[in-house]
Amino acid sequence: MSEDTQKCTIVMFSGDMDKVFAGFIIATTAAAMGMETTMFFTFWGLKAIQKDTPTGKGLFGRMLGIMNRGGIDRIGPSRFNFGGMGRWMFKKMMKDQNVALLPELLQTAIDLDVKFLACLMSMDVMEISRDNLIDEVDDVVGAATFVAEAQGSQIQLFI
Amino acid sequence: MSEDTQKCTIVMFSGDMDKVFAGFIIATTAAAMGMETTMFFTFWGLKAIQKDTPTGKGLFGRMLGIMNRGGIDRIGPSRFNFGGMGRWMFKKMMKDQNVALLPELLQTAIDLDVKFLACLMSMDVMEISRDNLIDEVDDVVGAATFVAEAQGSQIQLFI
Amino acid sequence: MSEDTQKCTIVMFSGDMDKVFAGFIIATTAAAMGMETTMFFTFWGLKAIQKDTPTGKGLFGRMLGIMNRGGIDRIGPSRFNFGGMGRWMFKKMMKDQNVALLPELLQTAIDLDVKFLACLMSMDVMEISRDNLIDEVDDVVGAATFVAEAQGSQIQLFI
Repeated sequence: MSEDTQKCTIVMFSGDMDKVFAGFIIATTAAAMGMETTMFFTFWGLKAIQKDTPTGKGLFGRMLGIMNRGGIDRIGPSRFNFGGMGRWMFKKMMKDQNVALLPELLQTAIDLDVKFLACLMSMDVMEISRDNLIDEVDDVVGAATFVAEAQGSQIQLFI
Repeated sequence: MSEDTQKCTIVMFSGDMDKVFAGFIIATTAAAMGMETTMFFTFWGLKAIQKDTPTGKGLFGRMLGIMNRGGIDRIGPSRFNFGGMGRWMFKKMMKDQNVALLPELLQTAIDLDVKFLACLMSMDVMEISRDNLIDEVDDVVGAATFVAEAQGSQIQLFI
Repeated sequence: MSEDTQKCTIVMFSGDMDKVFAGFIIATTAAAMGMETTMFFTFWGLKAIQKDTPTGKGLFGRMLGIMNRGGIDRIGPSRFNFGGMGRWMFKKMMKDQNVALLPELLQTAIDLDVKFLACLMSMDVMEISRDNLIDEVDDVVGAATFVAEAQGSQIQLFI
């Protein structure tokens, strides 16, 4: 990596489908434009890089794993409402355009070497283990790694 | 524009009144301080630069246009709840301070030459055409234009 | 402060516990890594730097003060839902990890000389006075102060 490589670092905090979508669009676009791009998945954002497998060790952790089940295919409208629009409307929008795209966008990000970092602290809180994440996750790290990445980035966003 | 002009680029993703307000306050302040300021409106944020006209081509698109009708005057509390506060409380706050200000803030942004970019992809999904946007929108663009703007900006925010 | 001190500026807009938590984690980490770190508290984010005292002058302002009562200890799950998870689930997560940490994180931020700025405009709207804020708040300022801070920062985030 040369000295003048431009960098883009995005905190993927939200698990809402629209925001996950926006994050991946920006990340893949930045990567396609030659920027070294890092996505730091934390809290609800972790869902996008989870396998579609049960998580949790204790009773509550397992129930959380069921209610907030991971897997980018599962990110959908059932858990939110999009500003008052009916769920069916959103499903229609997703069917037309978005849902099919999220797994594709994930794969595009992988193909473009976008770096996937997972937040250790929120994984601990939510009882998500490394095994619950897709293999393409580059590392499980603390906030200091994110700050160091962001510090050297031309673009930093919290989504 | 000289080489050392400072730039500020804001993604206007949210359609919630409080966040739209925050975005315009930051944008107009940055522009007033001499920064070249760009607002990139996407998803629910598009509402702020829509005319108060019907949108949508198909049945569902038209219904979305009715439920999520655009126009900065229409951005209000009826579609959300502000952390549990009653709607009436928010209306009172708006009446005292904010609602009157949003159209003014939009006009101030226009007067200060804030650049308005609209996201082509979300316009397609939501069946919003260029004709549905106010005349002052500078361009309808893809994510690459946003990334290029953000890359050269001292301030980038996702709101 | 030397010329090459790195800076981090965060807009604390949200009053949701998870986002407040994320903001303080990033801020304290950046400060611990030697960055000059500023948190600009606005709208619902003000709650984190309020005392646990009543606010408001008029009837509505006082009612807002009761419904949206400040104090970092009071930031909890009762006002939101975390993507459909039951409240009890979130309480369990908080009990295990987070709630105990928020006041600690606030104190850590203070100990690390994180600069706390409060947004004058939103204080006016919400009828919150300087006396309602904790003593450690460094200043009550307008948006221009935030923009100037962010302009000179390597990291700027809107949370």
